[in-house]
Amino acid sequence: MAGSTYGEVFKLTTFGESHGEAVGVIVDGVTPGVEIDNAYIQKQMDRRKPGQSSVTTPRKEYDTINIVSGIYDGKTTGTPMCILLYNTDMKPEAYDDIRNAFRPGHADYTYLQKYGIRDHRGSGRASGRETAGRVAAGAVARKLLERRGVEIVAYTKSLGGIKCETYDESYIEQNPVRACDPVAAEKMINRIHELAAAGDSCGGIVECRIRGVKPGIGEPVFDKLDAELAKAMLSIGAVKGIEFGAGFAAAEMLGSEHNDPMDASGFLSNNAGGIVGGISNGAEIVFRVVVKPTSSISKPQQTMNVRGEEQTIVTIGRHDPSICPRIIPVVEAMASIVLEDLYKRQGALHDQ
Amino acid sequence: MAGSTYGEVFKLTTFGESHGEAVGVIVDGVTPGVEIDNAYIQKQMDRRKPGQSSVTTPRKEYDTINIVSGIYDGKTTGTPMCILLYNTDMKPEAYDDIRNAFRPGHADYTYLQKYGIRDHRGSGRASGRETAGRVAAGAVARKLLERRGVEIVAYTKSLGGIKCETYDESYIEQNPVRACDPVAAEKMINRIHELAAAGDSCGGIVECRIRGVKPGIGEPVFDKLDAELAKAMLSIGAVKGIEFGAGFAAAEMLGSEHNDPMDASGFLSNNAGGIVGGISNGAEIVFRVVVKPTSSISKPQQTMNVRGEEQTIVTIGRHDPSICPRIIPVVEAMASIVLEDLYKRQGALHDQ
Amino acid sequence: MAGSTYGEVFKLTTFGESHGEAVGVIVDGVTPGVEIDNAYIQKQMDRRKPGQSSVTTPRKEYDTINIVSGIYDGKTTGTPMCILLYNTDMKPEAYDDIRNAFRPGHADYTYLQKYGIRDHRGSGRASGRETAGRVAAGAVARKLLERRGVEIVAYTKSLGGIKCETYDESYIEQNPVRACDPVAAEKMINRIHELAAAGDSCGGIVECRIRGVKPGIGEPVFDKLDAELAKAMLSIGAVKGIEFGAGFAAAEMLGSEHNDPMDASGFLSNNAGGIVGGISNGAEIVFRVVVKPTSSISKPQQTMNVRGEEQTIVTIGRHDPSICPRIIPVVEAMASIVLEDLYKRQGALHDQ
Amino acid sequence: MAGSTYGEVFKLTTFGESHGEAVGVIVDGVTPGVEIDNAYIQKQMDRRKPGQSSVTTPRKEYDTINIVSGIYDGKTTGTPMCILLYNTDMKPEAYDDIRNAFRPGHADYTYLQKYGIRDHRGSGRASGRETAGRVAAGAVARKLLERRGVEIVAYTKSLGGIKCETYDESYIEQNPVRACDPVAAEKMINRIHELAAAGDSCGGIVECRIRGVKPGIGEPVFDKLDAELAKAMLSIGAVKGIEFGAGFAAAEMLGSEHNDPMDASGFLSNNAGGIVGGISNGAEIVFRVVVKPTSSISKPQQTMNVRGEEQTIVTIGRHDPSICPRIIPVVEAMASIVLEDLYKRQGALHDQ
Repeated sequence: MAGSTYGEVFKLTTFGESHGEAVGVIVDGVTPGVEIDNAYIQKQMDRRKPGQSSVTTPRKEYDTINIVSGIYDGKTTGTPMCILLYNTDMKPEAYDDIRNAFRPGHADYTYLQKYGIRDHRGSGRASGRETAGRVAAGAVARKLLERRGVEIVAYTKSLGGIKCETYDESYIEQNPVRACDPVAAEKMINRIHELAAAGDSCGGIVECRIRGVKPGIGEPVFDKLDAELAKAMLSIGAVKGIEFGAGFAAAEMLGSEHNDPMDASGFLSNNAGGIVGGISNGAEIVFRVVVKPTSSISKPQQTMNVRGEEQTIVTIGRHDPSICPRIIPVVEAMASIVLEDLYKRQGALHDQ
Repeated sequence: MAGSTYGEVFKLTTFGESHGEAVGVIVDGVTPGVEIDNAYIQKQMDRRKPGQSSVTTPRKEYDTINIVSGIYDGKTTGTPMCILLYNTDMKPEAYDDIRNAFRPGHADYTYLQKYGIRDHRGSGRASGRETAGRVAAGAVARKLLERRGVEIVAYTKSLGGIKCETYDESYIEQNPVRACDPVAAEKMINRIHELAAAGDSCGGIVECRIRGVKPGIGEPVFDKLDAELAKAMLSIGAVKGIEFGAGFAAAEMLGSEHNDPMDASGFLSNNAGGIVGGISNGAEIVFRVVVKPTSSISKPQQTMNVRGEEQTIVTIGRHDPSICPRIIPVVEAMASIVLEDLYKRQGALHDQ
Repeated sequence: MAGSTYGEVFKLTTFGESHGEAVGVIVDGVTPGVEIDNAYIQKQMDRRKPGQSSVTTPRKEYDTINIVSGIYDGKTTGTPMCILLYNTDMKPEAYDDIRNAFRPGHADYTYLQKYGIRDHRGSGRASGRETAGRVAAGAVARKLLERRGVEIVAYTKSLGGIKCETYDESYIEQNPVRACDPVAAEKMINRIHELAAAGDSCGGIVECRIRGVKPGIGEPVFDKLDAELAKAMLSIGAVKGIEFGAGFAAAEMLGSEHNDPMDASGFLSNNAGGIVGGISNGAEIVFRVVVKPTSSISKPQQTMNVRGEEQTIVTIGRHDPSICPRIIPVVEAMASIVLEDLYKRQGALHDQ
Repeated sequence: MAGSTYGEVFKLTTFGESHGEAVGVIVDGVTPGVEIDNAYIQKQMDRRKPGQSSVTTPRKEYDTINIVSGIYDGKTTGTPMCILLYNTDMKPEAYDDIRNAFRPGHADYTYLQKYGIRDHRGSGRASGRETAGRVAAGAVARKLLERRGVEIVAYTKSLGGIKCETYDESYIEQNPVRACDPVAAEKMINRIHELAAAGDSCGGIVECRIRGVKPGIGEPVFDKLDAELAKAMLSIGAVKGIEFGAGFAAAEMLGSEHNDPMDASGFLSNNAGGIVGGISNGAEIVFRVVVKPTSSISKPQQTMNVRGEEQTIVTIGRHDPSICPRIIPVVEAMASIVLEDLYKRQGALHDQ
């Protein structure tokens, strides 16, 4: 109800504030008896962690996972896993001047309106740091999905107006912006360095492809596979839109163009993005999300404070000029969680 | 779990197949003591019903609501409302030839894969007819939101490649395509007639504006207002994408452009679309959804049948060349349901 | 949230008031492809229906089921089943004199306090008639459980102070009070006739035995099998307590007496009632519920009215002197629903 | 779904095993802006903790709470509270000999059947230690209820066959068995010492009284106040039954005796235990639970092991001869959680 929980069978609850003692996650509904290697989870954490390259924030969080429960003798027990990530490189004093001012693009104003109180230090609960718990839970889901033959990969499709023109999957984890096109990647890195120098930030588009999902996954009519993915993606702070398959381009297509014909080998096109009637059809699942420019910039901006006075604000602190590179493991994590949950729901329906 | 239910406090469950006895909805969690005029609900049903104009399917459903429970002496009692809509103009025999073939763009294949069995008549549960129950429930939510001062309006923004250039809200319900621009509307109507003659269909974009939502609505971190709206919209069969405020255009914006500055009177721009950190900020909520071209077309298409044989299919039957005009009341209904539910969740949080 | 729904995977929602148009139920999460014979469900309805013998209320409801959705060609489709039971023998005018007075033992006062409004006719939503929907849903669950080899039987263990001393399962459905002891049954019937003549009513105890449940069913820590059964039973209006296995007698036992020892063949006693740590252990599940005396009696009672004035009330109308005989199918239905839901949850946990 | 979560608005999720790193709880849906004194929560922890007197287990857990999130500047923020309780006095080696044997009365066998794997150390997740998290969450609920004027008190009503004959509320926390009768308390203490010496244990009855609940709390039809309390109480490992008001005695009462008459001042008796139709009626809420004898006894018992062989077992370790004294704060905690959640649900229903 209070919104910190996602999932019905494979279920996670995140907790923690950016500058509190720790952030973390509870994962319940985990298949028992599955070997989970700590390094497997840590690897995903490291893809999200700050300070990993010149294009990300210099905040130094080691994000070393601490599994408090749910594992015995290296295997899941089926009881809830609690994974803690202690906050280490906190500078709450850096936020003293925003205690009373509302930073444009941030949730400062809306949190105060909602709760009547807020923990302003580093955005508190609204911080992107909350997603660390999601990535830990997502790694557990990813492990379970591997056993089902499901593969998930996300990457930067465009950033700061620069678009990928080629697709080289092997290159994605080889460049700090996680772009799928080596030429575009180079330009994106330069763009980020320019923006960092100018105290500004930029948006981008992240694309996600999911292979190996069997047909039949997704629950009509409200918990459709695309509806659940849309919710999961829009629950990531910086995401402002999502489209599946042909997406918004479908607005200018005819039915005779958009419908995917079939032959005995399967679908001959994929305008549907692998989902029809909210259920996977066995084709590759493809969606794109738009990531807004980072709200924290050091250019002066006009705003209001809690006393209703107008003022100028400069958001100092340590920030990513573009969120795309570090949002990618979060997109993959949420996609993994959605899929593992819906697989288990399909299992429940057919249980004899 | 099985996906026929949406909402936590204000909660609806739809049921029924296109060519069964009836479709309908249960609405639970309704504020007690509210006067509900049957005509108020019926008005919304009439906006969605087939056969209302030359641009919609000729299937004739009167969609007369039958409130079975939850109302006494003209007022809600707080107990579940069951609203039934009997199916009247059914022609199941029209679907005999698709009993074994998978229509491109339809959920025929995916339903069979999911359930191992399906009611093929008029798409069964996957039919757009299922949304009739949502519109009935949405009318109840709309009534409750009116008491809160919330106003919701959706309209066709583009259709078949024709875009609205002006915005005249008073004109929306005056034209059969529900466009916001009289000039564009005329062109759209002609386009639909052409496509109907050619046995084809087209996509479009529907935009929705919501005014009067107080700041503070939406639940961090998974049940954000935009996440819930995204889920609700993508749960509508033909919707393939959603964007809020500046939407996908944010991919090419800088932080200094996208952030909405504030002064003492409020926000000076609305790139956020009225939602920051998943919580309403008091500005107008604006989102757009892309509606795919109607899957049912009478042009021959290549497909497969249940025996794995390739065949050609012509989808006869009675269909809308564009779903936009009739999807608009469904978009408004789902938006109403999302908001009323989140308002009540905010009420629960602050209840003393 | 509003409380009309039970279950996580196998899920039902009831609706309807005693003297409205109909009562009914939505069942979602039904295994697809299962043959459901209407007569199978109707048989359970007939066990609950009023007017079935001299010991029950003379209200005449035929309770003929009307399956609106979720079945095609005699098989479940996996989509929600809506089952309607029209109200036929209504005498709302019989309730005119209680429009303003609170009947002792009834929910008149509490409903008004909760909702600020109520449908007083025949107790409205608080009527035992609401359980008709549960019995219909329970019959679906029972069908699914039969495929798993699970058998559920409930019976009157004591009534009006008369206790069963023997156990003859084959006799239970042969006598109108559904007692398990022919000698006690005769006395119970006479007791009921006496009480009916005196305008009074009596309580009793119903026992339930469930056989064939495999070990491992039930979800630690809050959704234990006994916790779910307790909730389900206490959700039946007239039930005021429940005990498992040795039950309240355990208060005077030693650990060395209460612990059930095992040998290679299984458990050597069953003080646990088949449930340990909230999980089935493979032994027979045994519980007892206490059923309060029917609240509606024709003896004059002291009460208050909505204006705060004291008055005397005589509850006329048509009522059961003891609820035990007709509550038995409701107890079995709720037990079936709990078990089918937990079986499916176990299936979800282990789904690969 | 996996059962580690309770509540709809005020919601808790417990995690952790008896001999893992920690046990703990996440509490979501907490009213923001409420001052929570750490000492307030710790006081409840201390009432539950082991080693507090001669009648409890000598295991020494300090159970010092560690609030990881959800509090800022001494006040709740409305975001999830994570409360950790590190395990300190663990002796996992004490459990080596039960790694393969099923202890009678314990969940060893059922957990293995359910999950196919188990953490056997100190009963793992099935340990009573899991309730520490509930008591922490219950303290938060209690704080919120105090603001509503609600008061909850539980006490030992009978233990080892010794029954309280008088009621002195001020004495309850003055004696280690938490009995309400000084004479009975003395006998109970002696009984426990005898049983400890004999390597045996005993059961008892705990009664709970709740005052100050306004009429109207509880959700028809499945989430009745008594249904939710029943579920919450039966979710406590050692509880095997519950009864409200007159309880099982109602089986031998007439309607004219059991119905509670009213006058202008309220109800003249309380056979209903303060709940009618599943909704609070403003009278004192009264229920009793039966607590089974502690399963861990040092008398030799017959059992089976994982290889299917019969064997004798002596459960060494450190255990409470009766669970009643330490279960009392757990009963109060769960009652607090149920009530705060249902209060908030009532708030959601009437939110304007």
